[in-house]
Amino acid sequence: MAVNLMPPDAAALLAVPGVELGYAEAGIRKAGRRDLMLMQLAPGSRVAGVFTQNSFAAAPVQVCRAQLAAGTPIRAIIVNAGNANCGTGEQGLAAARRTCKAVADAIGCAEAEVLPFSTGVILEHLPVDRIEAALPACKASLAAGQDHWAFAAQAIMTTDTVAKAVSRSVMIGGVQVSVTGIAKGVGMLQPNMATMLAFIATDAVVTQGALARLVKEVADASFNRVTVDGDTSTNDSFVIAATGQAAHKAIEGGADYETLKRAISEVAVHLAQCIARDGEGATKFITIDVVGAASSAEAHVVAKCIAHSPLVKTAFFASDPNLGRLIMAIGNAGIAALDTSRVNLYLGDVKVIDCGGRAASYREEDGARVMKPAEIVVRVELGRGEGAATVWTCDYSYDYVKINAEYRT
Amino acid sequence: MAVNLMPPDAAALLAVPGVELGYAEAGIRKAGRRDLMLMQLAPGSRVAGVFTQNSFAAAPVQVCRAQLAAGTPIRAIIVNAGNANCGTGEQGLAAARRTCKAVADAIGCAEAEVLPFSTGVILEHLPVDRIEAALPACKASLAAGQDHWAFAAQAIMTTDTVAKAVSRSVMIGGVQVSVTGIAKGVGMLQPNMATMLAFIATDAVVTQGALARLVKEVADASFNRVTVDGDTSTNDSFVIAATGQAAHKAIEGGADYETLKRAISEVAVHLAQCIARDGEGATKFITIDVVGAASSAEAHVVAKCIAHSPLVKTAFFASDPNLGRLIMAIGNAGIAALDTSRVNLYLGDVKVIDCGGRAASYREEDGARVMKPAEIVVRVELGRGEGAATVWTCDYSYDYVKINAEYRT
Repeated sequence: MAVNLMPPDAAALLAVPGVELGYAEAGIRKAGRRDLMLMQLAPGSRVAGVFTQNSFAAAPVQVCRAQLAAGTPIRAIIVNAGNANCGTGEQGLAAARRTCKAVADAIGCAEAEVLPFSTGVILEHLPVDRIEAALPACKASLAAGQDHWAFAAQAIMTTDTVAKAVSRSVMIGGVQVSVTGIAKGVGMLQPNMATMLAFIATDAVVTQGALARLVKEVADASFNRVTVDGDTSTNDSFVIAATGQAAHKAIEGGADYETLKRAISEVAVHLAQCIARDGEGATKFITIDVVGAASSAEAHVVAKCIAHSPLVKTAFFASDPNLGRLIMAIGNAGIAALDTSRVNLYLGDVKVIDCGGRAASYREEDGARVMKPAEIVVRVELGRGEGAATVWTCDYSYDYVKINAEYRT
Repeated sequence: MAVNLMPPDAAALLAVPGVELGYAEAGIRKAGRRDLMLMQLAPGSRVAGVFTQNSFAAAPVQVCRAQLAAGTPIRAIIVNAGNANCGTGEQGLAAARRTCKAVADAIGCAEAEVLPFSTGVILEHLPVDRIEAALPACKASLAAGQDHWAFAAQAIMTTDTVAKAVSRSVMIGGVQVSVTGIAKGVGMLQPNMATMLAFIATDAVVTQGALARLVKEVADASFNRVTVDGDTSTNDSFVIAATGQAAHKAIEGGADYETLKRAISEVAVHLAQCIARDGEGATKFITIDVVGAASSAEAHVVAKCIAHSPLVKTAFFASDPNLGRLIMAIGNAGIAALDTSRVNLYLGDVKVIDCGGRAASYREEDGARVMKPAEIVVRVELGRGEGAATVWTCDYSYDYVKINAEYRT
């Protein structure tokens, strides 16, 4: 039921020099599906990531954090679907490290040069033996081709209904640079699946400091702007790998940084929107623009409060221009000294709230018209300042309950 | 579909000396149902209340706050269902005041001695003329009897499926004191209805200062501990009226204060639990006990985070002991430096999480057994301190979506 979302066209993806991708069927949770993905990075690649804020951060997240903090160059990324390796204690940490060791042995690098990622069921121990058994096949399939990006996007899926991948190319220092990313969702937290993983690779040459800055700035403008159900997963991870294979001067900052950031942001925003479009049970893709806030942080709080309200989300499912729920959600954001008489709200091109009350020009049939399409834009004007933020989300349908009530059965 | 919730037995309710109740069919939203309730208080009654924190506080909430702050004695409470008089600007304030004036004229008191309450659709103007037209019938029905408490509980309902009323009696200074309360829900916010109203009356003699303290302390231990969907209504109001008709010494504090507080708290907790039992689409009544927190506020945050998680709520609907979702929700509460290896969790009498991981003794069939009944207790031990809190909630079912998607159609 994904909203206006097609599988990626492999021919439209760009290979990234310095990146090879492999995949295999490890049978981690279910047999007969690709559930293991290996990304091998050329020597000299730089990697930076951001991770979940959930207190129960999964074992692979803890290992990633430690290995990135140690500053060892990264040569490989290994991802399994079907098991989150979360809530698994010391045994889980050992399992994540053993996975890294197996990859290191297979491709000939050090254990500390491998980053592990897991997504799937929480509180079950990771069957590392199955990963080890599948690694030879995974390694044998390593290749740089465009189609391998599409296969990689499939191999990290859990309950995603559509694989998510996209590319951009950009000129830096007279050289064409590729940016390709893949992600899986399908919520901040998934039906017992733990959850969002996103990997973007580029052959750009970027200093470690600039890359660390880039991953945070891009995450804030993309994945941190999408929500399905407001639940933050234990395994959320977003990583950028820059292989440095392009023949331009290393990017430290300045115009080249902004150019690369724009391309990576476009890829990340596209992937983030794919996640909302493929949100559990989604029938609508909803963009919430909040402007006129005292700060962008304040705008973000208001947008998230609207996006998280079950009453707002069920109204979108019903294509019901239920204005009362929208102002309830704004009022519920806890904004100090909000002057409600300055609040305006638009659904699509229709002004529905004017100065905190129903717009005099508003007709129910206009509201019904703009609520009908599969894509809806909500615009809120708070009248307090220049702060703005955009959040993408989806509606709550019967299928959201169905998917989440029936997931384990 | 309310969970183990029967309509109040009028014979089990206690009349409260100094309180008379009337009701009428005003046809505010629908014809042929009682939607207007008048509570008349004897001279010398004291009233205190707490109100919604939503920035879009409804017009009647604003009027109540102003009139209570002015310190004028209160002689009447008027409640309409079917229209929230919220998001209605100056015209809404004028409508609330006009309602007070009409009541004052009808019963012979000052406009400032009447508190107005509204619950129902947001962003529509209150048809005060219908209230005015129904007031003579409402006044004519004023009586102190037990059955009038039951009628009053019915007259304030919106999409509640069961009326909510309960009584306690308690001895103070050798005198029997009555406490009777009514409430309506059926969520922190209701399908476009705005929402929780609760009124408790007692003939106890209480000073204004003690009553103001009492209403806050009782609200924190009762209505502030219940959640259906995490959305806070624009009209939430909880009021205690003490008529002072009992022949004991005025309560300022001390043991008598605690005795009265216990009785009022029991009434408020019962009504709060009724609201969760009658939560939209509810099939389960869930009690979440969090202990071992650094503070009771911290325990409350964790309990609410569990209670608000759509993934946890759909798992309860499915009777699915989905442990991963429970630890995700705890980890998502934003508790600084939470040592997850000290966290334990019980479903009913079954220990499911031990030291942050799946309990070795846990068997899936035990989890399935305790998730099956209509009433489930979740107990979380954080291992940080002495802070504790309890929250009551319900599950998310297909009917939650159905009720909220179809409400206006």
